Amino acid sequence: MSPISQSLNPSTPQVSHAPIPVAILGATGTVGQRFISLLDGHPWFRVVALTGSARRDGQRYGEAVHWLLSEPLPAWAAEMPLVPTAPENLNGAALAFSALPSDVAREIEPQLASCGVWVCSNASAFRREPDVPILLPEINADHIAVLRQQQANRGWKGGIVTNSNCTSSGLSVALKALDDAFGLRQVFAVSMQAISGAGYPGVAALDIAGNVIPYIGGEEAKVEWEPRKILGAVTPEGIRLADFRISAHTNRVPVVDGHTVVVSVALKRPPADTEEAIRALEAYQPPEIARDLPSTPRPVIVVRRDPDRPQPRLDASTGGGMTTVVGRVRPDPIWDLKFVVVSHNTVRGAAGGAVYNAEVLVISGLVAAPA
Amino acid sequence: MSPISQSLNPSTPQVSHAPIPVAILGATGTVGQRFISLLDGHPWFRVVALTGSARRDGQRYGEAVHWLLSEPLPAWAAEMPLVPTAPENLNGAALAFSALPSDVAREIEPQLASCGVWVCSNASAFRREPDVPILLPEINADHIAVLRQQQANRGWKGGIVTNSNCTSSGLSVALKALDDAFGLRQVFAVSMQAISGAGYPGVAALDIAGNVIPYIGGEEAKVEWEPRKILGAVTPEGIRLADFRISAHTNRVPVVDGHTVVVSVALKRPPADTEEAIRALEAYQPPEIARDLPSTPRPVIVVRRDPDRPQPRLDASTGGGMTTVVGRVRPDPIWDLKFVVVSHNTVRGAAGGAVYNAEVLVISGLVAAPA
Amino acid sequence: MSPISQSLNPSTPQVSHAPIPVAILGATGTVGQRFISLLDGHPWFRVVALTGSARRDGQRYGEAVHWLLSEPLPAWAAEMPLVPTAPENLNGAALAFSALPSDVAREIEPQLASCGVWVCSNASAFRREPDVPILLPEINADHIAVLRQQQANRGWKGGIVTNSNCTSSGLSVALKALDDAFGLRQVFAVSMQAISGAGYPGVAALDIAGNVIPYIGGEEAKVEWEPRKILGAVTPEGIRLADFRISAHTNRVPVVDGHTVVVSVALKRPPADTEEAIRALEAYQPPEIARDLPSTPRPVIVVRRDPDRPQPRLDASTGGGMTTVVGRVRPDPIWDLKFVVVSHNTVRGAAGGAVYNAEVLVISGLVAAPA
Amino acid sequence: MSPISQSLNPSTPQVSHAPIPVAILGATGTVGQRFISLLDGHPWFRVVALTGSARRDGQRYGEAVHWLLSEPLPAWAAEMPLVPTAPENLNGAALAFSALPSDVAREIEPQLASCGVWVCSNASAFRREPDVPILLPEINADHIAVLRQQQANRGWKGGIVTNSNCTSSGLSVALKALDDAFGLRQVFAVSMQAISGAGYPGVAALDIAGNVIPYIGGEEAKVEWEPRKILGAVTPEGIRLADFRISAHTNRVPVVDGHTVVVSVALKRPPADTEEAIRALEAYQPPEIARDLPSTPRPVIVVRRDPDRPQPRLDASTGGGMTTVVGRVRPDPIWDLKFVVVSHNTVRGAAGGAVYNAEVLVISGLVAAPA
Repeated sequence: MSPISQSLNPSTPQVSHAPIPVAILGATGTVGQRFISLLDGHPWFRVVALTGSARRDGQRYGEAVHWLLSEPLPAWAAEMPLVPTAPENLNGAALAFSALPSDVAREIEPQLASCGVWVCSNASAFRREPDVPILLPEINADHIAVLRQQQANRGWKGGIVTNSNCTSSGLSVALKALDDAFGLRQVFAVSMQAISGAGYPGVAALDIAGNVIPYIGGEEAKVEWEPRKILGAVTPEGIRLADFRISAHTNRVPVVDGHTVVVSVALKRPPADTEEAIRALEAYQPPEIARDLPSTPRPVIVVRRDPDRPQPRLDASTGGGMTTVVGRVRPDPIWDLKFVVVSHNTVRGAAGGAVYNAEVLVISGLVAAPA
Repeated sequence: MSPISQSLNPSTPQVSHAPIPVAILGATGTVGQRFISLLDGHPWFRVVALTGSARRDGQRYGEAVHWLLSEPLPAWAAEMPLVPTAPENLNGAALAFSALPSDVAREIEPQLASCGVWVCSNASAFRREPDVPILLPEINADHIAVLRQQQANRGWKGGIVTNSNCTSSGLSVALKALDDAFGLRQVFAVSMQAISGAGYPGVAALDIAGNVIPYIGGEEAKVEWEPRKILGAVTPEGIRLADFRISAHTNRVPVVDGHTVVVSVALKRPPADTEEAIRALEAYQPPEIARDLPSTPRPVIVVRRDPDRPQPRLDASTGGGMTTVVGRVRPDPIWDLKFVVVSHNTVRGAAGGAVYNAEVLVISGLVAAPA
Repeated sequence: MSPISQSLNPSTPQVSHAPIPVAILGATGTVGQRFISLLDGHPWFRVVALTGSARRDGQRYGEAVHWLLSEPLPAWAAEMPLVPTAPENLNGAALAFSALPSDVAREIEPQLASCGVWVCSNASAFRREPDVPILLPEINADHIAVLRQQQANRGWKGGIVTNSNCTSSGLSVALKALDDAFGLRQVFAVSMQAISGAGYPGVAALDIAGNVIPYIGGEEAKVEWEPRKILGAVTPEGIRLADFRISAHTNRVPVVDGHTVVVSVALKRPPADTEEAIRALEAYQPPEIARDLPSTPRPVIVVRRDPDRPQPRLDASTGGGMTTVVGRVRPDPIWDLKFVVVSHNTVRGAAGGAVYNAEVLVISGLVAAPA
Repeated sequence: MSPISQSLNPSTPQVSHAPIPVAILGATGTVGQRFISLLDGHPWFRVVALTGSARRDGQRYGEAVHWLLSEPLPAWAAEMPLVPTAPENLNGAALAFSALPSDVAREIEPQLASCGVWVCSNASAFRREPDVPILLPEINADHIAVLRQQQANRGWKGGIVTNSNCTSSGLSVALKALDDAFGLRQVFAVSMQAISGAGYPGVAALDIAGNVIPYIGGEEAKVEWEPRKILGAVTPEGIRLADFRISAHTNRVPVVDGHTVVVSVALKRPPADTEEAIRALEAYQPPEIARDLPSTPRPVIVVRRDPDRPQPRLDASTGGGMTTVVGRVRPDPIWDLKFVVVSHNTVRGAAGGAVYNAEVLVISGLVAAPA
């Protein structure tokens, strides 16, 4: 069992239903691989279809994939056939985990939702839609309420739930705890992002070896916007953005897994001291509905008090890669607080987040097990 | 000839004096090595003494040093004896380049200044003193005026001039150009610093390989304070700090040479558009006295317009490592401007800066060639 | 649970005795840390003492250690006091895992053995002694027979068992399988070794970043000698070296964990084809006594048939870091076979190997549980 | 001036002819970029055409290229138009430097040779032809004699000269010096190759970060064969292979520039001791015709006596990247000698080698300056 499976809490009460059949869309990429690894032995879900590009139609997954995880490729996955990404190929899946490129997602995901499939998507295609939640259950599980609007607006029998951009995820978790306690006004965030966030082949070694690339296309706009939606409120017109502002610089660094974000924040009611801020972070609890699911991060936030932590190589896999690790909480000489956030970009920031989202869909009754 | 020698402009008018004898204090460390490389073939200076720790007294430099530069160790340096760091061992040097640890510098440098030696120091020991300039000639050569106060206050026949912390240097150059044009109010700066900035052995490979360390002891305090002194003004009471504020996060990344700093600034008179800011940076000219010296960066600032530059591995050696490279100039959604600065930490940020400082002492007549 | 715990086979029959109290000597270093991680939850052993340098006497382990593993420091270890390495401080331990530096091991380990403690040592101090086995149970568990000679020769009530140098371990496992099947004559081995093999702080980042260091002090002599002892035979005069010869080049590369060794071999009875060699490697079985222990690698050898495997970052943790991974088995144009070996240097090549050795001491009755 | 220009010996006698017009084929790739950098300021050659893929026809080179060298892109090159690779587009070039992919080279290079152009090719397409020399002038400049056969056999007015595979080059230089002195019998060579050897985008960062890839497609066959041709003899039937044998393992490591090869050799007349071998390497002199050209490595071989050198990051740029650096010369326990070779893969092993080859064509009168 790998570190990233640690969050599958063995004490999670067994759900008394048959396994729910699920599909993984875009299964050969780095996020697709992480889905396979995380769903290996999942207590609720059984993978019944793996999709990939049409030119690989009919290949066994084990042949088609360039497996990049240090956890071994599960035997059941190696033997499954790879099918083209289309509604008729999902083999009865009630739920689809999408690791599709954004342009493909934009076309396929609505077709699936229309047919009654629930799509837990890692693609950015629909994140800007007011009736599509960017769900991080430990902080905004209540946003599933917008799914009724989504079904009504679009005439879908299923629906689309997205997870956030990989850099927004850990950042949003930390911001949520501080917003609850002190009220956010302004946020300055600078990321140092791992190469696995760019997929495969992704970043060329000649570009990043011993180097920093101070640019990731489209990323800053996402990091400046998504946390405001994630911390926003459900209204009859969809999700309304929270009213703080973010300025982001996003950078690529030669790290394999784990995004680091350094943050300064201006707050409405600043804490009396650093300890009060740390306590607010440590005390953070997920909403009731998201608290005891197989993928619930345990705990949601770890605050390190060592002077030089968190670090991505050492801390990204905390809590099986689902925990947000915060450290270096200290006063900011211009605004109120400075701190550092590390989060696992392909687990909490991608596949693990989507699996957690799917668990919320199940526990809330939106996705039902087969009769 | 190495990239870092490019700044030795062949058009620099020959100075019609005998070579000035200089010493390198702490010559075996990474900054000491860079001094040797930069002074190899310098048109004005001739190295007459290399000092190191007492336990190596009498060794040839070539035996004592663990040479870490890709430029070869010059033969003249390999053959010189290493002597203990003490005034009586400087072999008639009029000027000493100090790469001493700060605690040693605090004791030795005043002894030398008292004896009439001019010390161009890379140590932080005296940077906080109001009568000791942190000199970056391309932006504050006029701060040498404070040296008269220093001599009067302390009864020294020589004096101490420091260069800035390696992260403050490129940052201060970019800030100066913007301050002149638009007036600085607030600065948010996040560094991603190279391992050579920590000396040798410095950072353990096990700590930084494939990792980010979001902490460098004492660094943030320096980066939040030094640029304010560097951009300050000479008064009868010494140098007065400039009145803007800085918030800094400093990080170590797995890069060999070249510090990257991402910056957001709030300005008094914001530029009409990004182009106006770029023009202000590109048009920046050093003060007259510092404009045509052997180590003058040519140009002082390069602004890259490619979306993904500057990058430390590709850009740190621009202008022989003396030029400050700026890129990604763009609006900031909270304050006024965002941009990225890359600067060579052991050249512009250490040894090269100190050599440039020494050239200003010579051209201003403070250090004279032997009769 | 971490990848390195995978070898703790849940099907291992419960041993019906009380936990055996063990000590970890030199517990703060990188190998000491790995011992703590591997013994966390071990079914047979309970850690009762952690030793370190005298200057840290009395500190809690959690304060004293610079923890470098991505697996969290177990709480029980964090709270234990660190005691100086001395026989009177072992708190009743029947068995000591030694991660001591070789010079300290040379003095302390015999004192412990003399007092009746069994020492499973990672130090090289006694590996050259004919009556001290270099034990890799999956290939030479029968070498424990020499321990009777050791006790008789030295008048010890306990004894010393060593594991091999980290590079020799995986190499020896692969060579053993080939020697059994085809008879070894000559071996050419070139290692590319991970930085964790040098301990902490170990290799300076400035030395190894983006670089190869084609030299590791003393390593080649070990790699050219140890496998011959490991594959040797127990005789009345101690262990006799096997009669093949090895030529080794050892190199450091910028990899965190996992040593890669490329090998060419000349054989007495070459295989008919590559497949026969692969089958011999895959069919290899450990001796009966070492086959079902908690740390038995499962399987002992994995042969990869992908053209570009094994790779240290992806394959070193196979079988919880205890499995030897071989790949690229192919004909050699001068001798008989070429292949590549990857093995986890701090698990199979250090702490995990020593724990496996201890399990053999228990199962063979040499170490008894407390009454 | 960059380190790689150091070999342009200022004492090279000025050639009293007009500049020779040359083209660079495949100018946008990593080797093409190195050609531009090396030809910037070359005393004999003037670049008159840059070719690239047809889809970039008409773009300025500065727009089309993703420039990856730390030396700046020369202004003259930035402004040149990129033209499709075809004989009619070479703008009167007498000589073409080819950095084409092998399949394109196979088609285009003969067309050019047929039209009277001399092609100095980095492609492997024709290296196996007996009448096409793999030229390393410092060791086999006499192989240009085979060019008369090439012209006769093929009816060409020009011709094709290749340089070796980047790993074969430094290895062959060291082997030549030893073959001359002691006679080679067998060679065992293991490479640790830089990522720049794979071109751009080449190796994915996710594959090589903190890793070793023990496989490079087709490389081992080249390294086992090319040095035998390079050290072979010109006969009436073309070049006859030298009669020693090589076994090679080729590996990719996370190094930017500089291939490291560790070597063991069996010799016909072994040296009396290591010093005799070192002297043979240090005394090696290029053939008369190749001794004083602008790109002649000075010296051809440097032998390092430090225990841990050569290292690619520190030593690959020795002699402007043209010198072969050897170290760790010592006895081999099975054969005769062990040693380590570092050579710059894109300079001596690619573009620099091709420029040196072109200089030999000029000095030998095969390529004439325009009237």
